[in-house]
Amino acid sequence: MDGQYYAVIMAGGGGTRLWPLSRQAVPKQMLPLIADSTLFQTAVQRLQRVFPPERILVVTSRQQAAQLQEQAPELKPENFLLEPQPRGTAAAIGLAAACLQARDPGAIMAVLTADHYIGNESEFERYLLAAHQLAEGGQLVTLGIEPTYPATQFGYIQLGEALGEVGGFTAHKVLRFKEKPAAAEAAEMLAQGGYAWNSGMFIWKVSRIWEEFQQHMPELHQTLEKIAAAWGGPDFEAVLAHEWPRIAAQTIDYGVMERAAEVTVIPARDMGWNDVGSWDSLFEVLKVDTNGNLVLSERHLDIDSRNILIHSNGQERMVVTVGVEDIVVVDTGDVLLICSRERSQDLRKVIELLKEKGLQQYL
Amino acid sequence: MDGQYYAVIMAGGGGTRLWPLSRQAVPKQMLPLIADSTLFQTAVQRLQRVFPPERILVVTSRQQAAQLQEQAPELKPENFLLEPQPRGTAAAIGLAAACLQARDPGAIMAVLTADHYIGNESEFERYLLAAHQLAEGGQLVTLGIEPTYPATQFGYIQLGEALGEVGGFTAHKVLRFKEKPAAAEAAEMLAQGGYAWNSGMFIWKVSRIWEEFQQHMPELHQTLEKIAAAWGGPDFEAVLAHEWPRIAAQTIDYGVMERAAEVTVIPARDMGWNDVGSWDSLFEVLKVDTNGNLVLSERHLDIDSRNILIHSNGQERMVVTVGVEDIVVVDTGDVLLICSRERSQDLRKVIELLKEKGLQQYL
Repeated sequence: MDGQYYAVIMAGGGGTRLWPLSRQAVPKQMLPLIADSTLFQTAVQRLQRVFPPERILVVTSRQQAAQLQEQAPELKPENFLLEPQPRGTAAAIGLAAACLQARDPGAIMAVLTADHYIGNESEFERYLLAAHQLAEGGQLVTLGIEPTYPATQFGYIQLGEALGEVGGFTAHKVLRFKEKPAAAEAAEMLAQGGYAWNSGMFIWKVSRIWEEFQQHMPELHQTLEKIAAAWGGPDFEAVLAHEWPRIAAQTIDYGVMERAAEVTVIPARDMGWNDVGSWDSLFEVLKVDTNGNLVLSERHLDIDSRNILIHSNGQERMVVTVGVEDIVVVDTGDVLLICSRERSQDLRKVIELLKEKGLQQYL
Repeated sequence: MDGQYYAVIMAGGGGTRLWPLSRQAVPKQMLPLIADSTLFQTAVQRLQRVFPPERILVVTSRQQAAQLQEQAPELKPENFLLEPQPRGTAAAIGLAAACLQARDPGAIMAVLTADHYIGNESEFERYLLAAHQLAEGGQLVTLGIEPTYPATQFGYIQLGEALGEVGGFTAHKVLRFKEKPAAAEAAEMLAQGGYAWNSGMFIWKVSRIWEEFQQHMPELHQTLEKIAAAWGGPDFEAVLAHEWPRIAAQTIDYGVMERAAEVTVIPARDMGWNDVGSWDSLFEVLKVDTNGNLVLSERHLDIDSRNILIHSNGQERMVVTVGVEDIVVVDTGDVLLICSRERSQDLRKVIELLKEKGLQQYL
């Protein structure tokens, strides 16, 4: 019994890597960073090249659901799947799998992110269709990203033997998943070749991931069985409220992918993928002016600055820069951040510092 | 007839070199930059080492008088001399001279600045007393500052023959006054020696400067005669309102000092003098923390920044810096300035730009 192809957007994340603009209450996917649309809206629009709105699911938290629904009115309310509490990506994907077990057990699901940038949408479409072909054959598929620099903020996938062409791309067996590397190891992998970044995009039959849960995460599988059985019924909320809190938080990578016997990866290139994981990364996805500056502020005057990013929400506030280089300035009203571009990964230290000092209001 | 010794504080200046903190409405001397006291208050307090409050005069504008009086309640209202409009330092000094011609014609006056920093006040006191001795003998005296770097923002005084010791210091004949030099010339003068910076501090008998006005600025002198004659009388305001606007604006340097036959300079050293003429200069007068940073902000978090200045008025606003160096950040609520330290002299370009664009509200 062949089912339909569904998109599952993972949109529950908090994320403070674009702090102080992204906050606990307003995570990255809700920001109109790249265009007038938010990253989430862009993701939903992009997916409609392949999926009709009724086959786009969103896994998110109760706190974020209302705002996301508002941003994507074309999605039906019942397609927003709400995690009572965050329990890691394995549980989030499991919730979507449970929903599809109930609605369309033959379904193929593509697990996708809400807060990444994809510059070449038609290429993205081709990858999704190629992955669908492989998933139809029963494979666990992931889209890897061909590395362009020795990134330390991503996990890596070591490519095994080529499995032949699909949709114009070469699929590979996954040799192994590797955690985020140190700088030296990242440089070595880049030099050596044969690695892809782990993008967090997965494509598989619901029945196949269900079996993997059963094998590698049996407790989660049992819980998901109960949730799937109750889906759409009168007891659903009660079952979810009872079962969900008992789930041990785990990532899909550690819980399933690293343990699964066979995983297929399609290394993607030319897709213009970017995780928008730091302020600095915006220089890769947005067009800079003739001085190399990114000015995302209504009122800004500059004299001789180079390669800076200015983001200001204050409409009446005048931001003036004189002769500065390679810095990021983000002004949210309650917080003013001035950060060296090469240190923009270090914002997590700021978050830690704020927590330490009990300054929760700025998180 | 020997008169008393008076201080005349020149406090009418606008000045936007510490923009955006110093503004047209709040010039530098009204800012509590160095301590809890404003530069003006510090100047008044410092002068009380030599002058009782009743012999401290302040020349200022109508706009600033009320605030300055509030900052220095120990000064009598009649000691605030109000220029109806700014007409340059020659006229401002002339107004004080006219006042003293009326009140104490034998007076000696020391013309001093409201917005400079003087680190060593007891040394300053000794210079003022030494200059008084020379002025008593009828000389036009100026305090020069021994140059410590090739400054281009000051005029220079070329020292002539030594005139002997006074109060432990060596006075010199002034060979000539030089305009603000270009960088190469400044370096040459520093290397060559025999120059002092023109600090704008002058000490002389009122009767002597009166003669100089008569000789070199006869029109101003005539006007001042009328003002002096009316001083304290019922027609004073009417005379001032009628005469003042006709004065051609001129500096005391160009109008008198460069033309006077004989001027005496005492080159001052070890006085800790600083004109606080740019944000960068604050690093010379304030104590930096162990990272070389000057944090003038209630709420600031930093990770690994060096040699930066943060000035923020916003009490609820959190300023966070990460890995930045050699910049000045000034946040006044309506304006946020981020400036390279070595470019802090270039704020005048910002002022010009704001005027050009009709953004007067930020001046």
